[in-house]
Amino acid sequence: MIKSIEESPLYRIANARSMAFFGASNSISSMGAHLLSAALASGFKGAVYPVHRKDANVLSLTAYRGVADFPEVPDLAVIVLPTHVVNETLEACGKKGIRQAVVVSGGFKEVGGIGGELEAELKKIAGTYDMKILGPNCLGVANPHRNINTTIIPNEGPPGFVGLASQSGSFVTQIFEYLSGFGLGFSTAFSVGNEAVLDIVDCLEYLGACPHTKVIALYIEGIRRGRAFIEAARAIVPHKPIVVFYVGGSKAGKAAGFSHTGAMAGPDELYDGMFRQAGIIRARSVVELFDFCWVLGALPIPEGNRIVIQTHSGGPGAAAADACGRAGLVLSTLSEKTLEKLAPFVPSTGSVGNPVDLTFTKDPTAFYFHIPGILLAEENADILMVYLLSPQRVVERILRGRGLPDEAASVQGRKITESNVDQLVQHLKKQKKPVVVYSFHRSDAHVMREVIAKGMPVFQGAERAARAVAALVAYAGVRER
Amino acid sequence: MIKSIEESPLYRIANARSMAFFGASNSISSMGAHLLSAALASGFKGAVYPVHRKDANVLSLTAYRGVADFPEVPDLAVIVLPTHVVNETLEACGKKGIRQAVVVSGGFKEVGGIGGELEAELKKIAGTYDMKILGPNCLGVANPHRNINTTIIPNEGPPGFVGLASQSGSFVTQIFEYLSGFGLGFSTAFSVGNEAVLDIVDCLEYLGACPHTKVIALYIEGIRRGRAFIEAARAIVPHKPIVVFYVGGSKAGKAAGFSHTGAMAGPDELYDGMFRQAGIIRARSVVELFDFCWVLGALPIPEGNRIVIQTHSGGPGAAAADACGRAGLVLSTLSEKTLEKLAPFVPSTGSVGNPVDLTFTKDPTAFYFHIPGILLAEENADILMVYLLSPQRVVERILRGRGLPDEAASVQGRKITESNVDQLVQHLKKQKKPVVVYSFHRSDAHVMREVIAKGMPVFQGAERAARAVAALVAYAGVRER
Repeated sequence: MIKSIEESPLYRIANARSMAFFGASNSISSMGAHLLSAALASGFKGAVYPVHRKDANVLSLTAYRGVADFPEVPDLAVIVLPTHVVNETLEACGKKGIRQAVVVSGGFKEVGGIGGELEAELKKIAGTYDMKILGPNCLGVANPHRNINTTIIPNEGPPGFVGLASQSGSFVTQIFEYLSGFGLGFSTAFSVGNEAVLDIVDCLEYLGACPHTKVIALYIEGIRRGRAFIEAARAIVPHKPIVVFYVGGSKAGKAAGFSHTGAMAGPDELYDGMFRQAGIIRARSVVELFDFCWVLGALPIPEGNRIVIQTHSGGPGAAAADACGRAGLVLSTLSEKTLEKLAPFVPSTGSVGNPVDLTFTKDPTAFYFHIPGILLAEENADILMVYLLSPQRVVERILRGRGLPDEAASVQGRKITESNVDQLVQHLKKQKKPVVVYSFHRSDAHVMREVIAKGMPVFQGAERAARAVAALVAYAGVRER
Repeated sequence: MIKSIEESPLYRIANARSMAFFGASNSISSMGAHLLSAALASGFKGAVYPVHRKDANVLSLTAYRGVADFPEVPDLAVIVLPTHVVNETLEACGKKGIRQAVVVSGGFKEVGGIGGELEAELKKIAGTYDMKILGPNCLGVANPHRNINTTIIPNEGPPGFVGLASQSGSFVTQIFEYLSGFGLGFSTAFSVGNEAVLDIVDCLEYLGACPHTKVIALYIEGIRRGRAFIEAARAIVPHKPIVVFYVGGSKAGKAAGFSHTGAMAGPDELYDGMFRQAGIIRARSVVELFDFCWVLGALPIPEGNRIVIQTHSGGPGAAAADACGRAGLVLSTLSEKTLEKLAPFVPSTGSVGNPVDLTFTKDPTAFYFHIPGILLAEENADILMVYLLSPQRVVERILRGRGLPDEAASVQGRKITESNVDQLVQHLKKQKKPVVVYSFHRSDAHVMREVIAKGMPVFQGAERAARAVAALVAYAGVRER
């Protein structure tokens, strides 16, 4: 295990101060144009050297004929060239003194035949020059904290706390937009490709030592160094949760994974045992992978699995109770003290059991402030789950119906929503129990944006929320071990 | 079973030509204001009579002191009054000749004690006046095809093909916005509440006969008339699919459901058997309930469970293969003929197996038109699943990098996306195999809106898409039976 992040062989890749692009291009349909464009759009501050045989400029940058022309030895070479010229380019980089490379080009072990031989040669070159290589057949790295992005898609979201090591480049790039929709972002994300030199274990160790990373996500099709993987994970999980989505366990997933990166998958039970042994939490899908990361990075770890549900509608309450039960959570029995405190806030048509169901209240402060406060003080509960429905558009409509101009009604509606969300969020800052929200609002609704901007996890439907809470509880168990 | 929709006791409720509102109010925090506002906002064309003791106008409408003042006998009475005056109001309505009522007020059987007696009295009044009553403790009906909405939230989306009968009013109202995000809408949605007079079986029969309803969704906490329910469902499923989310099967869901509507839930296995016997497809969550309705209403029914996956990224391909395998779908083996036809379109770094993985293509027409066409012609496949990534923002960035002004780059980017989606959608109209799309784009991304506007189901993540396809396959099995 590495003792500090600087010891990681990935350090100068994820924190490169200068980059050369082999395969850079002005052609809109070329992968090289996409990569360089994404790197520039991500705001990289260091020198960038695009290599092009003919063009004097590539995407407004001075182009170079080859390594010989570079005015310095760049930290990192990004290579997106036809397969047959990759190795000679790496050789030239090695001779120049470049010690880090991201090989985006495919056509190696994953295609079989001659591809395997080319990959063996690539590894030999890495050995000769002590070159740290990510790939081939990968998208490299995105480290938004350093404005570094060697992938094909610009990262427009803010830097965040989710560290990712992925055997799929898409689950780096195509998750940029997805995460930013939750107000989240990557701390650093690695696409490992064929793992010819550096592998997922190296990434895991890097992210374990990375100060920006609060939770680690893994997308895995197959693990090559099983023992090293378990050891690294075990050293990390006491202070940082790890979540995995493993795709190789089913017959169909295994076959698809093999043709993707040549990874050898193992039976689901075997991997399941390995993850459990290592204290890694398992997600069932990519969506769950990042749901789990959200709550694990944003919320305090609960002391137990006893949950209390707050709603103003019976159906969402019953559906949440059902989802919590199925996810292995226990619905708290509210104490006499809590029932007494709740009584003045719950109308006769509501229910003061668990779920606490208001049915309808005239006083939003009761729903968004007083009741959550009472429920968070309940000693029989470790977690609070709140159903969110914003009356914003209804309020706006009523105000318009009473003669208020459109603009004024709209301002007033927004204000009410914002004040409600503010009241709810105040509780989060003050105490140590996790609060999770579920809703059926569209993700682009004003209230959803407000909640997300305030750092509160909110999920569409109770099932996702309950499963995410169960992941929090699972991590509490891992830490106790 | 009813022979036509006009025979249904719900017909004049869901197709009321005039409505009286008892409990209508100008107070922004009252439920009566919300209800009347929602009804007006939904564009109801008939006469509306708000009842108010003092105010001359309610939300710009002339108010009436009581039933005696109405200039006609309205089709429907909507009652949102304190519990203790509901029955006397119903009695007055009966005497006036009103034969349909929606009782929104709660405080009846669901709260126990005196509530049970009040509900017995309500039923007696219904008997005396042959009055069709929805509720109490419900939100009534939304029929956007007739601009009718007695619920608390305005329905701003277009009319659609999803019929809903729900033991939760929230799953009517709070789904308006949710469904319209998918370009969907309700045909008619019923909130049944305590089912004192009319029940979920009556709604099922209505929706079975409703010409606007292509698929029926049920939210159930417990069924009172089991045999009638099965008989109605069996008569409907050969020509119209039914999907159910049953929440009472778990201990937690059962307890919550009981305090909600007083419904007696049964063991999960019992209900599961009943649903299977009746040919009803079961969803695991509210999200799945409407996912299943989307594909069942929008796509043709497949002839089998053999699926082919098209992607340009290995990870999403492997994750989709895994999800399809776990959902009980079979990955097709592509015929020699198909492999030959595909060869020119798939680069050497891609894979012509299943998933068909392009990795990267310079030609979007290959991805959006030629390859889907070839795969839909494959005789070994019944279903096509396509992974969607829009290069729109990347293209815009590259164009800007080459000096195009922001506006022009943006227009060009949008054009490319729209043309890609158009190409994909062309296939849908021509053939009889279902095509489903999955993506990690945010639901408010331009490409997602385009796909949705063209009527193509698109899901966040492969798991949801695979589960929805499995529901299509399940319905094919039900129909064959």
